[in-house]
Amino acid sequence: MKITLAQLNYHVGNFTRNKELISLAIKKAKDDYSDLIIFSELSVVGYPPLDLLDRLDFIENSDRIVREIARECKGIAALVGAPVINHRPEGKKLFNSALLLSEGKVIFSANKALLPTYDIFDEYRYFEPETVFRVFEYRGLKLAVTICEDLWDEQPFDNEFEKSRLYRVSPMEELARQNPDIIINISASPFSYSKIKSKENIFRSKALRYGKPVILVNQTGANSELIFDGASAVFSNRGEIVHRLPWFEESVFTFPLSDAISGNDQEEKPEPDVISLIRKALITGIQDYFGKLGFGDAVLGLSGGLDSAVTLCLAVEALGKEHVKALLLPSRHSSEHSVTDSVTLAGRLGINYEIIDIEKAFRAFEDILAPYFMGRERDVTEENIQARVRAVILMAFANKFNYILLNTSNKSEAAVGYGTLYGDMAGGLSVIGDVYKTDVYRLAEYINRNGEIIPQNIINKPPSAELRPGQLDTDSLPDYGLLDSILYQYIELQRSPARIEVSNSERGVVERVLSMINSNEYKRYQAPPVLRISSKAFGAGRRMPIVARF
Amino acid sequence: MKITLAQLNYHVGNFTRNKELISLAIKKAKDDYSDLIIFSELSVVGYPPLDLLDRLDFIENSDRIVREIARECKGIAALVGAPVINHRPEGKKLFNSALLLSEGKVIFSANKALLPTYDIFDEYRYFEPETVFRVFEYRGLKLAVTICEDLWDEQPFDNEFEKSRLYRVSPMEELARQNPDIIINISASPFSYSKIKSKENIFRSKALRYGKPVILVNQTGANSELIFDGASAVFSNRGEIVHRLPWFEESVFTFPLSDAISGNDQEEKPEPDVISLIRKALITGIQDYFGKLGFGDAVLGLSGGLDSAVTLCLAVEALGKEHVKALLLPSRHSSEHSVTDSVTLAGRLGINYEIIDIEKAFRAFEDILAPYFMGRERDVTEENIQARVRAVILMAFANKFNYILLNTSNKSEAAVGYGTLYGDMAGGLSVIGDVYKTDVYRLAEYINRNGEIIPQNIINKPPSAELRPGQLDTDSLPDYGLLDSILYQYIELQRSPARIEVSNSERGVVERVLSMINSNEYKRYQAPPVLRISSKAFGAGRRMPIVARF
Repeated sequence: MKITLAQLNYHVGNFTRNKELISLAIKKAKDDYSDLIIFSELSVVGYPPLDLLDRLDFIENSDRIVREIARECKGIAALVGAPVINHRPEGKKLFNSALLLSEGKVIFSANKALLPTYDIFDEYRYFEPETVFRVFEYRGLKLAVTICEDLWDEQPFDNEFEKSRLYRVSPMEELARQNPDIIINISASPFSYSKIKSKENIFRSKALRYGKPVILVNQTGANSELIFDGASAVFSNRGEIVHRLPWFEESVFTFPLSDAISGNDQEEKPEPDVISLIRKALITGIQDYFGKLGFGDAVLGLSGGLDSAVTLCLAVEALGKEHVKALLLPSRHSSEHSVTDSVTLAGRLGINYEIIDIEKAFRAFEDILAPYFMGRERDVTEENIQARVRAVILMAFANKFNYILLNTSNKSEAAVGYGTLYGDMAGGLSVIGDVYKTDVYRLAEYINRNGEIIPQNIINKPPSAELRPGQLDTDSLPDYGLLDSILYQYIELQRSPARIEVSNSERGVVERVLSMINSNEYKRYQAPPVLRISSKAFGAGRRMPIVARF
Repeated sequence: MKITLAQLNYHVGNFTRNKELISLAIKKAKDDYSDLIIFSELSVVGYPPLDLLDRLDFIENSDRIVREIARECKGIAALVGAPVINHRPEGKKLFNSALLLSEGKVIFSANKALLPTYDIFDEYRYFEPETVFRVFEYRGLKLAVTICEDLWDEQPFDNEFEKSRLYRVSPMEELARQNPDIIINISASPFSYSKIKSKENIFRSKALRYGKPVILVNQTGANSELIFDGASAVFSNRGEIVHRLPWFEESVFTFPLSDAISGNDQEEKPEPDVISLIRKALITGIQDYFGKLGFGDAVLGLSGGLDSAVTLCLAVEALGKEHVKALLLPSRHSSEHSVTDSVTLAGRLGINYEIIDIEKAFRAFEDILAPYFMGRERDVTEENIQARVRAVILMAFANKFNYILLNTSNKSEAAVGYGTLYGDMAGGLSVIGDVYKTDVYRLAEYINRNGEIIPQNIINKPPSAELRPGQLDTDSLPDYGLLDSILYQYIELQRSPARIEVSNSERGVVERVLSMINSNEYKRYQAPPVLRISSKAFGAGRRMPIVARF
């Protein structure tokens, strides 16, 4: 008995592409004399389809593709994921299903029972939870087919009072009574750098608990904000990882089931370093955002600071140096090193850049506004005008040359609202908006691991927005080490203010930081989509009211 | 037996305010010798609290306020809504509860069983559905306490294949077996102009089916995008509305239960006109957005077109003429009547306005960009620059004078992406972003019902963005009557393209319009919050992928 894992990069709603990927993988599996090929959750439509699931024509298209795939399954069975209409009289209109296709037919289907509805997941918005569980015998092998969350009936949450048992049923407990030979889990589980081990432990613990191999097939690639890490795996009945597919790459891999049953342990590969995974995730995120939208080229503003330098390096790796344009947009408050450091970086990367003085436009606005602002102090208004002038120029390039503007804000800034709406907060995609400043430093070090690419001066100089003379981030923000620790505890761990751990002397800082976070929901509401790498990113996974007191 | 309905305007997370509102209402009910006062769903915290429900300190605060309210219930009982921790070993961490408070204690509680998780609702994100149902006898009266959706087990959906029975239980069927005397429904049901009758029918049908009076208490006021219409009502056991509280206003109203049981029919009040309700909804939305955020003043750009004229009139009604500033921002492409019509309107409304020529800033950008754009045709880039220059000036006023910029885009434009990101799409709040252009005309007529306020010329002239010489909306868009019909069928009714009804000659237009809608998700992602008046507004209730093909 041979089984094939198909870890593929689907494009939401792009039935032609998804069908093609699936067909090619089936062909490869047949060439490898495989008995069964396993695709990931909702593979036919791509994950997450969101409200496309509300459209009947979308479901009809999916059904059609499923039938076409079934006809290709000659001498082999394919387990695909697809939304399927719920024909029962009550409940949600769809099931999130795993369909076993063979010889032109659906020979078995299993529906998802545990529907994640938290963070970025909204599955109960669309799907009815299944309540009946059956194993299926295929070529003498009893399969327990589960869909992603179905194996996560017991899971750790960061939240202070979420239950580890979020559901009232355990699909695997039900299936275990029917004595399956292997446990299959098809999933679409997005990357989160802090959940790598705990995710692995979910599957290991199921293998151990039931004494059966667990075969996990995850999606790879990115759809909008969500980046799927792949890393599909085969766990032996003793919980060892006997096969592991690559991170953030497509892979179609066939293995003999005996590997998993004998517990033929794979040589221990060292776990990849977290920063290198974050880097790979972000590159994947950029590539798929551009590629799937049909864009090739990016433009970004290179300020001389660390954030835009790191964003530029990631963009160059993702798109190629010919496809990234940098604009250096100095104002009267920009230091000379901002330009020289940026030029050095651009030169090293071999990218095309322009230096464009924004003074003329900035002054035009000052002149226009002078009669109305007379007698008033200069304040954040004038700082914002500079940031917005830059955005107008960057967007003009984007519009004229069909580039996407990359946003370069980091998560720490986004959290405390240290950015200008329609200014430096502009862009089609926020590349490092889920990366805290302290991790941006780590990314920079990683990028420089084989020699200096980002000039050390960019890494060393104290962060500054350079929107007024001598301005430093530390004028209005605490030190980034302290800031990021508070942010992580409040945002990711969702700790109550009193339970945020800081030294006594820093207690006052906590209050100030939380107040900044809470009063800037209105800005983040209009921020670009953020590539998600953490367990709680700004965007769809964090839904805070704007008009609220807290 | 006397019962009091408390239809109040809560502020999410503002425990001090909510507590004060509740206390005052209890005092009034006591003065009226009421036995029972009924508040709306989640009244203690305000609806919708969204992810504040993930914070333990938020729940602890709510618990504390509930205890304080209970101590005020002497000689009276109060039914309040609050999130309550689920102490069972499995499931979501909270219940959405109705708590009956009396003499310092919680004497009864009912948890919500049907958790709406569609459109703008995400209740299964936070709450465990209840599965056990009990009536409660209070002063000899058996109460069936339900929470909002609990009575909506059977409801019409616009969607092509959503089931009218969305849930597998009917709480009221269960409660009916215990023979209650009255049915109470505490709700937080947002306004939707197309659902007025169908909402009423839900309650009427329950009264008729069970032969019991139904007492509905709804929230009023707005929280961010959502506007709650109040319109709480008492339905007799024969399904007649015997009492109806006002729309979009606070009201605390006591009545003898005999009214509802004898079916003492109220004189038939004419249903309010839909356009007048939309107007009232939008005014409420503006008022509460500003008031609850602690802002008093608005700024907006007055283009000479209909959308900004209507938005201005609504803002003046909401905030007062001293609190709205209009900027007229003509460019070289603006027609003279744009300025004169705007001046006429501003004069009639008695508001403060400035006329600011944007030419100098527009030219500065042209000069700056000339070397890079040399040899390229003028295109949408230059049009966008004008829109963005205006946004920079408007935001400068907002920043300098602590105004909120009101966005003036309508739903038809937002749908097809006819707007400039960081330009005319900017603003803290989109006032008419859920109003189709054809309804904007109706609003204008309504505003002019007692005499011309909006100059007839603004209403009559063909819509134009005036971003290039002689430009008209109809250059790139179909006629608004046809456009809005297609949009409504696609967005609100979620019809499949082939099932959108148009004449045969217009079939090609459908495809073009849908393609515009679908390819502009990236723009709407960064749009301001939109006051919701329809059954499907852009924003949190419509979650479409950006990187998708459809």
